[in-house]
Formats: sequence, structure tokens, C-alpha cells
Amino acid sequence: MVRVALDAMGGDHAPLAPVAGAVRAARAWGHEIQLVGREADVRAALRQQGDLSGIEHLLQIVHAPEVIEMTEHPASAVRSKRHSSMAVAVDLVKKGAADCFVSAGNTGGVLATALLGLRRIEGITSERPALAAQLPTTRGTCVLLDVGANVDVKPEWLAQFALMGSIYAEMLGKQRPSVATLSNGEEEGKGNALLAAAVPLIRALPINYVGNVEGKD
Amino acid sequence: MVRVALDAMGGDHAPLAPVAGAVRAARAWGHEIQLVGREADVRAALRQQGDLSGIEHLLQIVHAPEVIEMTEHPASAVRSKRHSSMAVAVDLVKKGAADCFVSAGNTGGVLATALLGLRRIEGITSERPALAAQLPTTRGTCVLLDVGANVDVKPEWLAQFALMGSIYAEMLGKQRPSVATLSNGEEEGKGNALLAAAVPLIRALPINYVGNVEGKD
Repeated sequence: MVRVALDAMGGDHAPLAPVAGAVRAARAWGHEIQLVGREADVRAALRQQGDLSGIEHLLQIVHAPEVIEMTEHPASAVRSKRHSSMAVAVDLVKKGAADCFVSAGNTGGVLATALLGLRRIEGITSERPALAAQLPTTRGTCVLLDVGANVDVKPEWLAQFALMGSIYAEMLGKQRPSVATLSNGEEEGKGNALLAAAVPLIRALPINYVGNVEGKD
Repeated sequence: MVRVALDAMGGDHAPLAPVAGAVRAARAWGHEIQLVGREADVRAALRQQGDLSGIEHLLQIVHAPEVIEMTEHPASAVRSKRHSSMAVAVDLVKKGAADCFVSAGNTGGVLATALLGLRRIEGITSERPALAAQLPTTRGTCVLLDVGANVDVKPEWLAQFALMGSIYAEMLGKQRPSVATLSNGEEEGKGNALLAAAVPLIRALPINYVGNVEGKD
């Protein structure tokens, strides 16, 4: 059983959509879900979910008085709203009351809250966090990053993402994963100035770098 | 009837695919297609197209001894291969023997050849060309640019593309077209450093700028 601290106020259709998801997750996987948000709102959303018999013990509400909205500037919102649903949920992970934190809310807010509350995993020296998605391909799955944590990156960060992504793919069970740079052509030399500056740094890493790929790959 | 100078050697499956397309276009629309490329190769591809009765007079072969390959560096290829299928096709337009030039080949080669051979339309002061695609939407069509002419752009170029795109949409029949910047969020202030620098320049243009849109729009 995994204990999930869920940001019940995060996302375009919160709290209804996250709460509905929590109910489905509890039913399907037996996970314990801590619904973090404004108690009255979350309770109302929960009441709309129909019969909860058999999973009631898996769904707990944890009150958090503030919400980081989608339109807010992440850094300032995180600084000013110390009792947001995100901050309270991350704190549950920090003190060991939950195993992980899930949110569909303001991406920058999620990143800033998690980084501030949980810090980096030991040994991670990357200057910036990256979001990694697992995409299905015709030959298995591939890890794509960064898919939204940064709007502008430096060549050094791309190289750090390459290393983190390779290790993450190993953790997912891939042995010596191939690492490629997504570019506007497979041929060497394709890509923008950023990529041209990053490629030598990536080549110097102890990973299995195979060059450029295109979106179709 | 439109007279099309077609680069019969351009694209991953040339000359077979462009020639097959030419046959279909001649049959469907009655256009005159000048198939530009290595005569023997083009003739062989034409022979594989089956019965051409009724459209034979619409398909002409114009010999060009050289081919700009997909993997070649555009600028140097255009400089060294003066008799490429692209150069010969553009020359047909230049001397009035064709109305337009079509190629599925090396994009940079197409741009460089066309710019060198045909120059800009009078009044166009944009520093760089842009490729504009017409995309179907739920409310009509939209013009998206730049879709592949430049890998790195300056804020000034983005503003120039906004102006050219607006005028192009007008030419396609849209009155006072809305112009938007494609960003990672609708909210003002979303986007990378490049966009932040371009927005004030775009706002200063005599166009109907409506701010950011997301891919889903």
C-alpha cells in the first residue's frame, strides 16, 4: 500500500477531479489517499462520489487553508502561501506520514514547493529540476525530459538532464539506456545553437549517447 | 491552369513520390507540371505511373544534372550545385516559364535557392524567411509560422513573422486576422525569454495582437 498525499485543490477542475481520481485509485489499487485542501470543499467533492463503502478508511481529509492558483507566479505564491494545499501535502511526505506527493496544479508551484520542502535526493547536483514523462513507443517506453519544468535552459542543464534521465531509465529497469537529443533532424549538426553547445557536454558523460532523434522516433 | 515547376528529386522517396504526386495533380486539377531532375531517373519514375493518356501533355521533363541531398548543408550545397533540380526549377519561375516552385527536398536548400533566385517580394523587409502552414481548426483555418525555416530566431524576427503572417492571412481572405503568440500558457507573462523580448515589438505593430495561445487553441 502506498500512502499518497494528494493536492486536492490542484488542477483546472479541482477539487472535483482530483477527489474523483482519488476514489478510483483507492478502489483500484487500495492506496491510502490523503486529500489535502480546504476541508469543506474537499468534503463536498467527496460527497458527490457516490457509495464509498469498502474504501472509506483509505480516504482521509487533511485541511489546508490556502490554494496556489494556476495563474499565480510560482516563486512568490510559494513564499506567501505557507499553508497551501501543496505545502501541507509536501510536509506530510517530509515528516513520513505519506510516501509521495501528487498534484495536477500550478507546475511551477509544485516544483518550488517540493524543492523547498524535500530538497534534492542525495548526490543530485543538477542545477535545475526537470519533469520526466514516460512515453509508450513501438519498442517499449521512453523517458522524455524536460517536459515543462523550465522555459529556458542552458547547455549545462541539458547535459545534467541527460545524466538524470539515463539514471532514471535505469531505475525503471532499462539496462544501459540509449540517450538521444530530440532535434529537428537526425543528422549530426542538426539542431539549434543551444543543442550545438550541449552535445559536447553530453558526449563527455558516462552514458550511452546515440545522437539526435526526431519526434517520430 | 497553374504551371508548376516541381523538384522531382526532392524528398525521401524521390523521384518516385514527387512524380506520382505530379500525375495525381495533373489528373485532378489539370495543372501543367514541369518535372525537374535527372532526365533518365524522372523518365523511369514516370514510366511506373501506368496509363497517362489524357494528361501526357501536362507533364514535361526538364533536365537538371545535380541533386541537393537531404543531408547536405544548405548554403554550401546551393553555392556548389548551380545546376541542381531546385536551382533549375526556381529558374523556370524566374524567367516566367512556371508560376510556382514546389519541392519536398532539403528545406534549407529550398529556402536558399528560392531567396537567391527570386529575391524577396517588393516591400518585404523581414530579415529572415519563415515557413507558414495553414492548419485546420474548429473555427476555420489558422496560419502557423515559422514551421521550420529557422532553428534559432531573434525577437525582431518573431515580430517580423507576426506582421508577415497577418498580411498572409489577409491575402487568404481573413479580415483583420487575430495574431497570437504560441506559448506554454495563455496567461500574460508565460513563455521563454525570447518571447518576453518579442511581445513588446509585436504589440507595437499595426496588427490585431491578442496575446498568448496554447497548442490546444
